[in-house]
Amino acid sequence: MKLEMICTGEEVLSGQIVDTNAAWFANVMMEHGIEVQRRVTLGDRLEDLIAVFQERSLHADIILVNGGLGPTSDDLSAEAMAKAKGEPLVENAEWRAKMEAWFSRNNREMPASNLKQALLPESAVMVDNPVGTACGFRVKLNRAWLYFTPGVPFELKHMVQEQFLPFIKQEFGLDAKVALNKLLTLGHGESTLADKLEALELPAGITIGYRSSMPHIEIKLFARGDKAIALLPRVTNHVRQVLGTAVVAENRATLAEEIHHRLLNSGLSLSLAESCTGGMLTSQLVAFPGSSSYLHQGLVTYSNESKVRILGVQPSTLDDHGAVSIATVEEMAMGARAILDSDYALATSGIAGPDGGTEEKPVGTVAIALATKGGCYSQMIQLPRRSRELVRSLSSAVAYDMLRRELLGEAVIVDYSSIGRFAK
Amino acid sequence: MKLEMICTGEEVLSGQIVDTNAAWFANVMMEHGIEVQRRVTLGDRLEDLIAVFQERSLHADIILVNGGLGPTSDDLSAEAMAKAKGEPLVENAEWRAKMEAWFSRNNREMPASNLKQALLPESAVMVDNPVGTACGFRVKLNRAWLYFTPGVPFELKHMVQEQFLPFIKQEFGLDAKVALNKLLTLGHGESTLADKLEALELPAGITIGYRSSMPHIEIKLFARGDKAIALLPRVTNHVRQVLGTAVVAENRATLAEEIHHRLLNSGLSLSLAESCTGGMLTSQLVAFPGSSSYLHQGLVTYSNESKVRILGVQPSTLDDHGAVSIATVEEMAMGARAILDSDYALATSGIAGPDGGTEEKPVGTVAIALATKGGCYSQMIQLPRRSRELVRSLSSAVAYDMLRRELLGEAVIVDYSSIGRFAK
Repeated sequence: MKLEMICTGEEVLSGQIVDTNAAWFANVMMEHGIEVQRRVTLGDRLEDLIAVFQERSLHADIILVNGGLGPTSDDLSAEAMAKAKGEPLVENAEWRAKMEAWFSRNNREMPASNLKQALLPESAVMVDNPVGTACGFRVKLNRAWLYFTPGVPFELKHMVQEQFLPFIKQEFGLDAKVALNKLLTLGHGESTLADKLEALELPAGITIGYRSSMPHIEIKLFARGDKAIALLPRVTNHVRQVLGTAVVAENRATLAEEIHHRLLNSGLSLSLAESCTGGMLTSQLVAFPGSSSYLHQGLVTYSNESKVRILGVQPSTLDDHGAVSIATVEEMAMGARAILDSDYALATSGIAGPDGGTEEKPVGTVAIALATKGGCYSQMIQLPRRSRELVRSLSSAVAYDMLRRELLGEAVIVDYSSIGRFAK
Repeated sequence: MKLEMICTGEEVLSGQIVDTNAAWFANVMMEHGIEVQRRVTLGDRLEDLIAVFQERSLHADIILVNGGLGPTSDDLSAEAMAKAKGEPLVENAEWRAKMEAWFSRNNREMPASNLKQALLPESAVMVDNPVGTACGFRVKLNRAWLYFTPGVPFELKHMVQEQFLPFIKQEFGLDAKVALNKLLTLGHGESTLADKLEALELPAGITIGYRSSMPHIEIKLFARGDKAIALLPRVTNHVRQVLGTAVVAENRATLAEEIHHRLLNSGLSLSLAESCTGGMLTSQLVAFPGSSSYLHQGLVTYSNESKVRILGVQPSTLDDHGAVSIATVEEMAMGARAILDSDYALATSGIAGPDGGTEEKPVGTVAIALATKGGCYSQMIQLPRRSRELVRSLSSAVAYDMLRRELLGEAVIVDYSSIGRFAK
């Protein structure tokens, strides 16, 4: 089965919006073991759309067309498809009734422009859209099914999951079951990880992929078929063993997500004291609903005065050791923890760059501490030649990894091959 | 001149990375008045690459090809181009010497695999890449120039700005000068803005575009030709007048960027007290180097206890009015300002959702205050039916807009047609 995608819309082609629909769709297909083989992106010119529908229908078996189903004059997908096949547009009575019911439920009269959304090519099979007014449909032309979906991301996702996937599985007999495990790693480059996993003999049907998702590398373990799926947990464990401390989470997108799930409903509480990470630690947790159940506070004490006044750092500590030092960051963490007697506190202080470095403490030097009720752990890492953004996101990840290891009862400080560390 | 783009690489096609290069390139071209007419994205299969080079070279005048110039076996762009044209790959002595010099400057021996990067199709014209080891080149096939660029974003951008743009301007005689002004707006929908600007009579050569960049809508005023460019400042002023308070910045990507530039080197200082925005206000400023010169602290007092202990909010205020109230947020702002006697402090407290709303204060209710040395301004806004992310980013933008207006000596609180407000 040869799958292609056609993305329409001036705003996508002209770069006014980044095409996240395309990446999302390809990624979902991959997770079902299906490869998108080509993607064509074009604007809202009728003759271009007609030409590309005709051309690609000669090469592909199924083409997901995204966008151009709205009510305005630049939404041309249905008209172009009708012209490409040489058939008229016909009003779909079922969809018109659905739209009218939707507007009347919302006490609004349906604008005349919406009527256009019920006009489908004569041979089209309607595809329901329970979450919007854009009607999906599919048309057979030459070798291909062209499958039309709305540009609104939420509506696209719904239609792909609920209808497109079942359709292609049935139409093309894709009953091969697949499963995916994702391991999030921290502090090791892709080639380092690959070198370690190269020697692994994988059972038939299991493949390994890598995805850079800074500051992490994600390892994807993909199993196709019942036999491979049954072996996936064992292979996953084996990979975890081989990689040791490099793996920091399983089936999570970020370490903040892992921390959120470990702290939620745990009864444990956390305070944060940030300098160079500047609110990144805090805002990553606040992004999750329910974080208020464990997060006491996140104090971005950006100035030295603020470190003294808010966290109780001793002025002499700042004078003797500097703001970016083990001594300061430990006092920051202990101070933040003590305010509300939180179970844990994390603190960061560093030089994010691009300026502000010294010979002794160059740009990319970051001190990180974890305070618990029993004591304090700290380290000073080196992140040379990284952007300001990456210094901040790597430091945040290392801080969360320290807390994660503490929560698991493991050694809090570990070596990362791609992250340097100052001797204490 | 018909311009197309071909993006190569499994990681782009399969959605493992979102193709920001494509959006960036199309956007830059637009700003130079040139439209990308079609974009084809495909993986690393040699026969697919050959076929698409041959096919599109029949339709376009110039094709920017991105990716596939690296040293590994899946980098196939040069080989595919040579095969598409039916000519051999030939080592480019100049590029080989450049690579060898680069490695020797870095005290490293050049790996054999890099030699591949000096192999270009026989008829290719080399395009210098001063910032990487991937050599650019261009080849004429059929009607088109195919222009090969590296996939690394930084290298692509350099090559497009320094070499691709001058080349197409010379080759296709594009000497039409263009200029662009961007107005950032807040709190009004695209249709509301468009309705107001519809009646505007624009001089020939000036066009208006809209770009959604949540929580903002950006208005692009595009002038083509000397005469239009000369009129652009006047048209920009006219648009600002028509839109009144809707315009919050000119040629800035975000309000945080505007605030950063207004505070940097101003001698003024700022403290932040955040609850529902949860570090978003703070981290948006810390993202800019130099923010330490004016940002005293950002205190994310997520729990009530923290509001009391850190900011000095009265427990009775929380009891009588609740955490999400004008009274509480004013005490938060005044408390944050007083700690280090900052010139200004902003405070937010709200219900970001998806849960936690009440009948009186539904999800999307956010109280915002600005404290100055002279007093305090506050408002309570309503953002129903927005995601948690959007409640947080809209609240952050409104807070920064209050500070911006204060810095300009304008009325601090204004009406936004798409943002509701509780009566005080």
